[in-house]
Amino acid sequence: MGELDEAALLERVIPLMPTQALLGPGDDAALVAAPDGRVVATTDVLVEFRDFRRDWSSGADVGWKAVAQNVADVAAMGARCSGLLISLGMPADVEVAWVEDFARGVAAACVQFDAVVVGGDLSGASEIVVSVTALGDLQGRSPVLRSGARGGDVVAVAGILGRSAAGLDLFRRNVREPLELLQAHRRPVPPVAAGPAAADAGASALMDVSDGLLRDAGRIAAASGVSVDLSTTTVLGEWIAALGEEFVLTGGEDHALLGCFPADVDLPADFTVVGRVVAAGEHPVLVDGALWSGVGWDHFGR
Amino acid sequence: MGELDEAALLERVIPLMPTQALLGPGDDAALVAAPDGRVVATTDVLVEFRDFRRDWSSGADVGWKAVAQNVADVAAMGARCSGLLISLGMPADVEVAWVEDFARGVAAACVQFDAVVVGGDLSGASEIVVSVTALGDLQGRSPVLRSGARGGDVVAVAGILGRSAAGLDLFRRNVREPLELLQAHRRPVPPVAAGPAAADAGASALMDVSDGLLRDAGRIAAASGVSVDLSTTTVLGEWIAALGEEFVLTGGEDHALLGCFPADVDLPADFTVVGRVVAAGEHPVLVDGALWSGVGWDHFGR
Repeated sequence: MGELDEAALLERVIPLMPTQALLGPGDDAALVAAPDGRVVATTDVLVEFRDFRRDWSSGADVGWKAVAQNVADVAAMGARCSGLLISLGMPADVEVAWVEDFARGVAAACVQFDAVVVGGDLSGASEIVVSVTALGDLQGRSPVLRSGARGGDVVAVAGILGRSAAGLDLFRRNVREPLELLQAHRRPVPPVAAGPAAADAGASALMDVSDGLLRDAGRIAAASGVSVDLSTTTVLGEWIAALGEEFVLTGGEDHALLGCFPADVDLPADFTVVGRVVAAGEHPVLVDGALWSGVGWDHFGR
Repeated sequence: MGELDEAALLERVIPLMPTQALLGPGDDAALVAAPDGRVVATTDVLVEFRDFRRDWSSGADVGWKAVAQNVADVAAMGARCSGLLISLGMPADVEVAWVEDFARGVAAACVQFDAVVVGGDLSGASEIVVSVTALGDLQGRSPVLRSGARGGDVVAVAGILGRSAAGLDLFRRNVREPLELLQAHRRPVPPVAAGPAAADAGASALMDVSDGLLRDAGRIAAASGVSVDLSTTTVLGEWIAALGEEFVLTGGEDHALLGCFPADVDLPADFTVVGRVVAAGEHPVLVDGALWSGVGWDHFGR
């Protein structure tokens, strides 16, 4: 990065990314359409050594993941992404080729998730720090919060659980297969279309599973004043058979969507039932009716 | 920061800041009103050791400045700030008291600039990295770009120039007075109301002076295909007499607004004429009709 000044670097990387907007990068600020009179906004930071390693993930992988985790939060409100602002702080010895690769990963994620880059910032830093803000358009929908789950609702998941954590475990153990799990860690694919679909179907609560199913189900339970009872006789059991309980129940970063729906709702196609909402009990989250006591799990009892 | 986990830290700092929005911090994303169907968005990063030092600026100063520089970019489009997303990366040894002080500085800036915090993120990092995204509402106005200046326009400034750089120079020389200049460096006060006022008055171009008057005037000149001739027989001369040419012409971070206006426009109250727009010449920016050749100035000739 020390090879080029900021303006020259921007000239290299901005053309690599889709930037369609009312007004994109280049002025003091961008201008994004917000046709329904409201805008969804979320931000997330990825820090080198903490959230990624350059020997495990390419620049393109980091760019992809930074986009994926933010568009997942937009989807989890029931919105579609209308624009991304991407800031990159980095040491002077990061090569221009890494930054270009990062931009290409952002671009690939934009194609996957139907998003565009509208702005950003470049700066020096002693490690790579990626900060992304995603904006979203609810297209007239009511936002789906974490707090609307009610006793009797079904609990359902769109996307996968446990694979990112399983892939990270492979990296840590210096095992480089199966590639599918490594890739799940490097390039999570949140089912973003399932967010608006859940809102349209009448979901009572919705969130992005970024910190693991038990923890995030616990957040819905806490926000809604209910408990969530997960069942391993569902697809959870199949995933557990393949990956193990710990990854499926506590692994983060797959960015599946976790939704609650009134029992009489026809679930959108991407969702599979994994449990039900029950009256608030001693524990916010149960597995097969009991407290799960697996490895490394802080059960956050009330 | 190692004392508390993220959730506990958020519980301490969120209540310190104004968070009024359609939906503020606490869910997957915030929801901000965009009544005119568009939203302005900009982002800027502050990195410790590069953009601030903890022995020169308090946590509150850093929080203030991070807000100020982003609301200035919103104002420079002709918009008012409708929401801020604030991410803070920091080492584990940063004290909770520093983070609380940061939040109080954000809060003070929110009062000054009529802004609210709608979201953010906390993470670990090896140095303090503050990333702010500001959203803005044009309230039906057309955005004022950098590219609209035309020959014959007057060039005018709202706010001050050179004081932040003069204050930074005092810090570097280990001089701790006058306090007014030190404070101008720590807590710039962009004239945010002047942005919408300039748009309403019919400004042809507008930008935030973050990198120094000559450089930023050069950006308007380049974007508009004109040259800008600044005059020291204006308020610029008074500022130069007080602070010196270098700080006034090349000092950044005061976040004044630089506007161009058709000659027949009544300038909004906050603006003072500092020059005029002329046909594109050999140099994008002139001072009193000639190329300025002061210390450290790369003149960016065409």
